[in-house]
Amino acid sequence: MPANPSLVLNKVNDITFENYEVPLLTDPNDVLVQVKKTGICGSDIHYYTHGRIGDFVLTKPMVLGHESAGVVVEVGKGVTDLKVGDKVAIEPGVPSRTSDEYKSGHYNLCPHMCFAATPNSNPDEPNPPGTLCKYYKSPADFLVKLPEHVSLELGAMVEPLTVGVHASRLGRVTFGDHVVVFGAGPVGILAAAVARKFGAASVTIVDIFDSKLELAKSIGAATHTFNSMTEGVLSEALPAGVRPDVVLECTGAEICVQQGVLALKAGGRHVQVGNAGSYLKFPITEFVTKELTLFGSFRYGYNDYKTSVAILDENYKNGKENALVDFEALITHRFPFKNAIEAYDAVRAGDGAVKCIIDGPE
Amino acid sequence: MPANPSLVLNKVNDITFENYEVPLLTDPNDVLVQVKKTGICGSDIHYYTHGRIGDFVLTKPMVLGHESAGVVVEVGKGVTDLKVGDKVAIEPGVPSRTSDEYKSGHYNLCPHMCFAATPNSNPDEPNPPGTLCKYYKSPADFLVKLPEHVSLELGAMVEPLTVGVHASRLGRVTFGDHVVVFGAGPVGILAAAVARKFGAASVTIVDIFDSKLELAKSIGAATHTFNSMTEGVLSEALPAGVRPDVVLECTGAEICVQQGVLALKAGGRHVQVGNAGSYLKFPITEFVTKELTLFGSFRYGYNDYKTSVAILDENYKNGKENALVDFEALITHRFPFKNAIEAYDAVRAGDGAVKCIIDGPE
Amino acid sequence: MPANPSLVLNKVNDITFENYEVPLLTDPNDVLVQVKKTGICGSDIHYYTHGRIGDFVLTKPMVLGHESAGVVVEVGKGVTDLKVGDKVAIEPGVPSRTSDEYKSGHYNLCPHMCFAATPNSNPDEPNPPGTLCKYYKSPADFLVKLPEHVSLELGAMVEPLTVGVHASRLGRVTFGDHVVVFGAGPVGILAAAVARKFGAASVTIVDIFDSKLELAKSIGAATHTFNSMTEGVLSEALPAGVRPDVVLECTGAEICVQQGVLALKAGGRHVQVGNAGSYLKFPITEFVTKELTLFGSFRYGYNDYKTSVAILDENYKNGKENALVDFEALITHRFPFKNAIEAYDAVRAGDGAVKCIIDGPE
Amino acid sequence: MPANPSLVLNKVNDITFENYEVPLLTDPNDVLVQVKKTGICGSDIHYYTHGRIGDFVLTKPMVLGHESAGVVVEVGKGVTDLKVGDKVAIEPGVPSRTSDEYKSGHYNLCPHMCFAATPNSNPDEPNPPGTLCKYYKSPADFLVKLPEHVSLELGAMVEPLTVGVHASRLGRVTFGDHVVVFGAGPVGILAAAVARKFGAASVTIVDIFDSKLELAKSIGAATHTFNSMTEGVLSEALPAGVRPDVVLECTGAEICVQQGVLALKAGGRHVQVGNAGSYLKFPITEFVTKELTLFGSFRYGYNDYKTSVAILDENYKNGKENALVDFEALITHRFPFKNAIEAYDAVRAGDGAVKCIIDGPE
Repeated sequence: MPANPSLVLNKVNDITFENYEVPLLTDPNDVLVQVKKTGICGSDIHYYTHGRIGDFVLTKPMVLGHESAGVVVEVGKGVTDLKVGDKVAIEPGVPSRTSDEYKSGHYNLCPHMCFAATPNSNPDEPNPPGTLCKYYKSPADFLVKLPEHVSLELGAMVEPLTVGVHASRLGRVTFGDHVVVFGAGPVGILAAAVARKFGAASVTIVDIFDSKLELAKSIGAATHTFNSMTEGVLSEALPAGVRPDVVLECTGAEICVQQGVLALKAGGRHVQVGNAGSYLKFPITEFVTKELTLFGSFRYGYNDYKTSVAILDENYKNGKENALVDFEALITHRFPFKNAIEAYDAVRAGDGAVKCIIDGPE
Repeated sequence: MPANPSLVLNKVNDITFENYEVPLLTDPNDVLVQVKKTGICGSDIHYYTHGRIGDFVLTKPMVLGHESAGVVVEVGKGVTDLKVGDKVAIEPGVPSRTSDEYKSGHYNLCPHMCFAATPNSNPDEPNPPGTLCKYYKSPADFLVKLPEHVSLELGAMVEPLTVGVHASRLGRVTFGDHVVVFGAGPVGILAAAVARKFGAASVTIVDIFDSKLELAKSIGAATHTFNSMTEGVLSEALPAGVRPDVVLECTGAEICVQQGVLALKAGGRHVQVGNAGSYLKFPITEFVTKELTLFGSFRYGYNDYKTSVAILDENYKNGKENALVDFEALITHRFPFKNAIEAYDAVRAGDGAVKCIIDGPE
Repeated sequence: MPANPSLVLNKVNDITFENYEVPLLTDPNDVLVQVKKTGICGSDIHYYTHGRIGDFVLTKPMVLGHESAGVVVEVGKGVTDLKVGDKVAIEPGVPSRTSDEYKSGHYNLCPHMCFAATPNSNPDEPNPPGTLCKYYKSPADFLVKLPEHVSLELGAMVEPLTVGVHASRLGRVTFGDHVVVFGAGPVGILAAAVARKFGAASVTIVDIFDSKLELAKSIGAATHTFNSMTEGVLSEALPAGVRPDVVLECTGAEICVQQGVLALKAGGRHVQVGNAGSYLKFPITEFVTKELTLFGSFRYGYNDYKTSVAILDENYKNGKENALVDFEALITHRFPFKNAIEAYDAVRAGDGAVKCIIDGPE
Repeated sequence: MPANPSLVLNKVNDITFENYEVPLLTDPNDVLVQVKKTGICGSDIHYYTHGRIGDFVLTKPMVLGHESAGVVVEVGKGVTDLKVGDKVAIEPGVPSRTSDEYKSGHYNLCPHMCFAATPNSNPDEPNPPGTLCKYYKSPADFLVKLPEHVSLELGAMVEPLTVGVHASRLGRVTFGDHVVVFGAGPVGILAAAVARKFGAASVTIVDIFDSKLELAKSIGAATHTFNSMTEGVLSEALPAGVRPDVVLECTGAEICVQQGVLALKAGGRHVQVGNAGSYLKFPITEFVTKELTLFGSFRYGYNDYKTSVAILDENYKNGKENALVDFEALITHRFPFKNAIEAYDAVRAGDGAVKCIIDGPE
């Protein structure tokens, strides 16, 4: 009798359905969530195809998924803020509770982080479970209750949205700032949307595909677009006379990092989210003489998840027709759990998928 | 009758003594200073040999010198904080008084900056006068009165010291921080000294010459040294178990920038002072996953000059024998004004000069 | 032949029309503005009635007015950003260009500030001219060009709006914050509006008059209201479960300061704008044990004026019907210049005036 | 057979020796410490005399003591940074590991804080154990290993020293700042010492007892003193021409808070540590027009304890004769554990005690 059906990446190109035990609540702060909606992330696809990302190497089977929302089905006896039936977004990385990084709000840097569907580098320890399963256990304080205007499907988008929240916070995006975002994939578009919600005066998104640029603008995530392949000069795509205050670089491409640095006004802030190759050629003279600041942005930390949920709630509070950003338009594909492998193959193949959502097992 | 003898760089390899008019005080805030001590900066030598630094190209004669201290000989009628006879350090760059950069404390970024002995890029305008002359005019608020324990010779060291103050401020060097400084030339050593005065728990200085490293340590500017050519691993030169909180990179060399980024602890701060080539290979993955921050540091801004003078005063307040840092030991060569060309040639030739001071004209 | 008709407060209860010289442009950065719209401020009324505010004592005639917008009629030869015919908001306080406060962005604290229609404490110097005249001279960088969506009448509201911008910045009001504003006079309502534009999740405004509260809410400046005279408990007026992150206290009333401190969540920020009496009873124990921060907020500084203009422009960019805040509804009274004394008397009498605008002389 | 002798406050004026169980290590992160040195705090005396501090009311017996250092005698299996025999300072307050306050570095504000020797307001729960016992259990990450130059006796001074670290951090005391400290009791003197170690240019300490002022200055904690009872004007006690950048108010006395606000320069920072009465008359006009900032400072948070230990280590690294501050001179009384009640009575009686240390039970 299958208790906890799960989608498992065994090795490169090998995904299967498995059935595991339902996790037991062992800590008073534990909560059991029935997963309802899960997004597919580019990193999932990367493990599927390459079996590794940098130092994270898949050496044993791993349940996939880390962009999920679900419904609370059981709570530990110390849990006071959540109850059975609550809809929640699941923050997938739980740090050590005693690390300095956690204590200081920077738990994304905790060396003991247990992050869903990310291989454990210690071969003697199991991989952290992913969220593409029926029942997932999480500490209560790494779940965020979904408010009135945030559906479970939107809840599955909280994880990548939070990457954008963290980046915008590091870059101190504020009312009136002019922002340039490189990359119109899901992370770039969501980072752009966050900048808009934080009050940016303009958000110019840069990519090499017109279709992605058009999507970003049509859903309200960007106010301006620039195709860096076919258009001439970034500065001409910006509002007249504007040099950007902030760059959110979400590609990791060398040319984009360079263009970001060259475009920024003196004293500007460049937030590096994308992380493609180990080294890239960096325009250090321009960087120094303009006294820019470069922030590395890795995942997210204290309060970022809650802010994402608040962004979604605020966005839809006056109805979808009055929403500043049409987040739902990013969901281009939907699959039932039984077709999850097909979903992975579809995303891997490309064919227009922006964000693909897999339903939880029945 | 020579009124204002001046040392002039006419073109590459061509320095002569000239005699100019004594500047007239035209603004109520103006002050006339008789220059007494001037340090030679690496940039002076660079213009002497190459005639340009980046976009700054020498196209007409220019009075040299921008590291000076002197004595007030005349004050405008609006000047209240200075009087004839006061010893002062001269801040050599005066920005536009109405620019946003000046207003916000970042006047080093002012596009209208008038910086002594730096060629004016507009061929129709004269070069800003340097300080290697007898009489130099400055706004009163760009002079800092030298207090009891700061000699005129130390006053001539305020300019490069302030580069270190600005860098340490950007890097928020604070009591207890572990700091690594790349480069044991004058700027690196002075930046290291500032980190010590700001309370760094350790200051490890890195260079490829043992003699420079030994100097930095012997005068108290650094607590640890690392010869990156002959020693194995930077981490072994640091205090046991320490990963640095802050890097002050004062070389601009690619390998140093890379080592700085790799050495820093997660969440660490890298301040880029050195600025050698346009582009360099930058370890972006390490930078992002550790969420480092990179600050470009260009010259200095609001309150930095005063802080340098305060550092020197505090350093010597209990006598030279109790000073934390022996700044005077950095002055390895001294020349009278009449031998100033010889001084430039000596510094250009190398031969052990750390800081060379030229007396003002009699 | 009257050249520069002006409205002059001679002494308590004594306002007359006078005719002065048109100011001459003496500095290359000077601009001559023909004043078109001027708001009456509570401080004007206070001088009218009492002849003093704190240490500022009226001892000789003074042109009134400091909330103005107009049209450029002449520019100095160094002015590049403005041209004849531009509509501008006038920032009424010009600090010393060499003061530390100005240099560091805090020019509101400059002891040499020359602020329109504020008596000069030095009896030997004239009072700074007010803006209730036909021609007003200002440095170019203390004028902000009005963009497409900001009328001259809105331009006259920039000054009090900027008080709110400065307060919200000090309080670091950010997306998602819950804000409480004490006082529903013009400053309180405008501060509330700024908090909304900065992305506050809720703005609860507090006053003792229902009519003011209703106005604040109906124009979109506040999301919640609390009548501290007739309603029971502030916490019940806030969104369910919310303790405010930020208080903007715009009354100076002791009871409001106390309620603000008591209401704030631990770690919250209280910005004190109102400034009624010298001393008040302050709940220090609550303040310390919750580790609150109290910011004194005085006028405004670097970049605040530009932000106000940007707020107005953004607010109206999609038409008045889509504006978040109906700023224009605050203008309840309008007078031609020839009826300016009547305007002062009307505001002094009360009778429902929120903001009264006087046209410039023909 | 006495296992864990403990000093217990039963009720007002009633202290007895009791013998409790040795705590068992239940969590892998637990450590058992044999307490060696404990300082008496003013709050201990307050409970002894009054049975309450504000809302904290003693309703059942409570082990006293929260300023302690000791030696590790047992470690949980998850402890890697400490081993048996290590000397440690004990941080006495352990917050909830899942609270927002803890996560964000402000765990002093955690509503679930369990603080040694502070009555639990819930009558159904026991009081948190104090440290005046033989064996005390603590999570490993709330112990700080004492380095080479920090004795166990100095380790017992870490707790009050950390109150000063926290205050100086909130006030951003930095190299060159002029600081005024109100109160020359242990907390004030230690706060002054921290300011000096952080690089303050001057530290002026204020009290009404010359003997306390002389002590503060003689041990190097302050550079200047002011007797607010017998001397005229604070400004005359400061270095010539100085207005303080920072006030550390450690008395809670109304007159001191007022004097602090009046003395500060425009833009200055006032840190409120003392907390005597609920309300006090606060000079709000001066506060607003100078745009001061007031910080409530309550206990201490992330990294403060480690910084205190680092301060002590750095202070003594070149031997006691070269120490900037003679912290040991603050220890005026020492008692063996068997005379602990006598120690309390001595401190309560006054008679010159600054800091009284009680040895741990044999």
